[in-house]
Amino acid sequence: MQAVKSKIKQWLDENKQEGIDLLQSFVQADSIQGNEQHVQQLVKQKLDELGLQVDMWTPDGDVLKQHPYFASPRTDFTGSPNVVGVLKGTGGGRSIVLNGHIDVVPAGDRDQWEYDPYSGEIVDGKMYGRGTTDMKGGNVSLLLAIEAIQSLDLTLKGDVLFHSVIEEESGGLGTLAAVLRGYTADAAIIPEPTNMKIFPKQQGSMWFRIHVKGRSAHGGTRYEGVSAIEKAFIVTEHIRKLEEARNERITDPLYDNIPIPIPINIGRIEGGEWPSSVADIVVIEGRMGVSPEETIEEAQAEMKTWLNQLSEVDEWFESVPVKLEWYGARWLPGSIDANHELMEILTDAYEQVRHEQPVIEASPWGTDGGLLTNVGDTPSIVFGPGVTEMAHFPNEFIELDKVFEAAEIIALAILDWCGVAQDQSK
Amino acid sequence: MQAVKSKIKQWLDENKQEGIDLLQSFVQADSIQGNEQHVQQLVKQKLDELGLQVDMWTPDGDVLKQHPYFASPRTDFTGSPNVVGVLKGTGGGRSIVLNGHIDVVPAGDRDQWEYDPYSGEIVDGKMYGRGTTDMKGGNVSLLLAIEAIQSLDLTLKGDVLFHSVIEEESGGLGTLAAVLRGYTADAAIIPEPTNMKIFPKQQGSMWFRIHVKGRSAHGGTRYEGVSAIEKAFIVTEHIRKLEEARNERITDPLYDNIPIPIPINIGRIEGGEWPSSVADIVVIEGRMGVSPEETIEEAQAEMKTWLNQLSEVDEWFESVPVKLEWYGARWLPGSIDANHELMEILTDAYEQVRHEQPVIEASPWGTDGGLLTNVGDTPSIVFGPGVTEMAHFPNEFIELDKVFEAAEIIALAILDWCGVAQDQSK
Repeated sequence: MQAVKSKIKQWLDENKQEGIDLLQSFVQADSIQGNEQHVQQLVKQKLDELGLQVDMWTPDGDVLKQHPYFASPRTDFTGSPNVVGVLKGTGGGRSIVLNGHIDVVPAGDRDQWEYDPYSGEIVDGKMYGRGTTDMKGGNVSLLLAIEAIQSLDLTLKGDVLFHSVIEEESGGLGTLAAVLRGYTADAAIIPEPTNMKIFPKQQGSMWFRIHVKGRSAHGGTRYEGVSAIEKAFIVTEHIRKLEEARNERITDPLYDNIPIPIPINIGRIEGGEWPSSVADIVVIEGRMGVSPEETIEEAQAEMKTWLNQLSEVDEWFESVPVKLEWYGARWLPGSIDANHELMEILTDAYEQVRHEQPVIEASPWGTDGGLLTNVGDTPSIVFGPGVTEMAHFPNEFIELDKVFEAAEIIALAILDWCGVAQDQSK
Repeated sequence: MQAVKSKIKQWLDENKQEGIDLLQSFVQADSIQGNEQHVQQLVKQKLDELGLQVDMWTPDGDVLKQHPYFASPRTDFTGSPNVVGVLKGTGGGRSIVLNGHIDVVPAGDRDQWEYDPYSGEIVDGKMYGRGTTDMKGGNVSLLLAIEAIQSLDLTLKGDVLFHSVIEEESGGLGTLAAVLRGYTADAAIIPEPTNMKIFPKQQGSMWFRIHVKGRSAHGGTRYEGVSAIEKAFIVTEHIRKLEEARNERITDPLYDNIPIPIPINIGRIEGGEWPSSVADIVVIEGRMGVSPEETIEEAQAEMKTWLNQLSEVDEWFESVPVKLEWYGARWLPGSIDANHELMEILTDAYEQVRHEQPVIEASPWGTDGGLLTNVGDTPSIVFGPGVTEMAHFPNEFIELDKVFEAAEIIALAILDWCGVAQDQSK
């Protein structure tokens, strides 16, 4: 096995530039929601080169929306294909899903970016750009791991299924579609940006929208109206207190180093029609974290009850209660058993490569691991090279060395998990 | 004069249904910004019937935008004509402008309306709908006043100029265009909704936009970012304190009964791109009242200085200051001398009709009176039948009786101000 390890490391060293070029080409292909076609073509091309069985298809929103775990703001996925590549094993081994999402969140305010968010600019060993960390860097680690294994001239017993999925950022429709198309396995690795930490638990999360009503009036006699903007501030502050209450209950040591284990984020606000009218409606949209110890439904019920108590904070809400909707994205919470064999294998591979013990924590955000586990019966571990703090940030970057280290660790784990046919590895 | 007064009252009584129908047709012709064509056709048709010299034209935004008091969010006024009708006097009398705007603010949240906002539904002597009070009811009072005078078979010495203008709700471009086209006079009456109060002072106002920056992050690690939404709340609260400070300085007894003489209204808010990202930019838009005792420029400077002090409230603003813009609408403050003869004449007419003294106050909002006074040298009084509290509100209505009372008062004032040729009035 030491020989195999050396060969993998050597192959990764010799193919560094090719790996970097591949990642740069992915980053330059802006793939915000609705715009994933171009980068998926690049992925498909790479998988074709590697000789995998490639399946590229457009998910059928009209069929998928019938599924109880469908969660997407859209049902038309034209221009947004999924790609799966399968490396068939000889049989008799355990199969593995390597799942990475290809969609990225919008770049945000360009003024806050030092480099063009779609440049893939490299400075001091870091590549900058939207999606470098979340999570095209992780996807490239997976592809490098597969290619490094292929360079060894040996054959795996178990199948390797590489998922390049859309829609993770808005609820996991891409992974749901892949799972329902049959692309499941005995376990999965998802290289989301964990700072090389291993996350056996994945926080769930879901989107909400709250309609806050006021009463309009001319701005010059604003005291005759009730500002929905002022009331929205009260609602936001009330939700902040719910976040506090929910997080005080979290005692799992996997969350010890996370300031807010299950955050509630208010991400959007919009309201009012006219600068000189008192705003009569404001809509706020956000994301509620769901602990692996609770269900989506329990978290929703708690939010509803909490918002009903707004009338105790401000009597306005007694006559004009807010309206709560759950819409768009939703990520199921998920977890893999702490003693699952893939946990042991991945930890072992990590220690072989990095010569230290990995940090094992709970994921501060939802991933497609919930769907893989709950719908695809594929227990999942989240582990990847990206920088957690830079996900969704301006100046998002990834340390390129980590992309290759993660590739090495994952390659070793795949060999161990899937098994090598005819004992070629000795 | 008593005979004339009786005849006017009689004519108004006999033509009540026609007046109501006219108002209803105006209300049913939704005339939000950009959509004024249809109702202006109805106005023109009425003025043609009355035999006035009618001028209907589309203001030339490219020329008007050169004017220092141009204030509009647009320069293309296609589909938004102005209309002026002139009733020529025999000469030797004082002329009067009767100015009313025909544009209305958007209806807002339809669920808050008991009746369709463009129905002109009549219940218990009130007509409901957007624009009934602000200010198509006042415009109909003007038209009824002109028609009632015409029914008397006498001729005025001074000219009467009826303005049906666009854009009052967004800065007065319509009145500016009318004034620059030469439609000015010795004084003006503007029947904005004053609850039959007489406003010799008009508050100015102007629109502002404030850009508040945060720093984006993934919602699941929201503690790594800085929410522009939370910072926008701090900015809003800071502005509320500026409003307090400015209003504490107002001592003019004309404002005694007004809770907030010169309000600052935050009317719109919008920010954030994604429910599960920390918002990195929020834009708030509002309207700042300007006292008749200060200039637009002084008020702007005070706001700027105040916002610079945000860094003392929250050090975030030290490194990331907010950006302030003045945009779109602006209404100049204006005032007419308390002893101006039209004030005396209007007060006298009011007492004759209502058998009580009028309430004389300062206007809680900007009107086109500032432009008429400052650009057109036409000192203006604001007095009208609409319900101040319902302007820009859902369920806006007007008491129909007031439309006819205002018409009677204005008719008497016109007769007195413009004078009757060859002493026909005796």
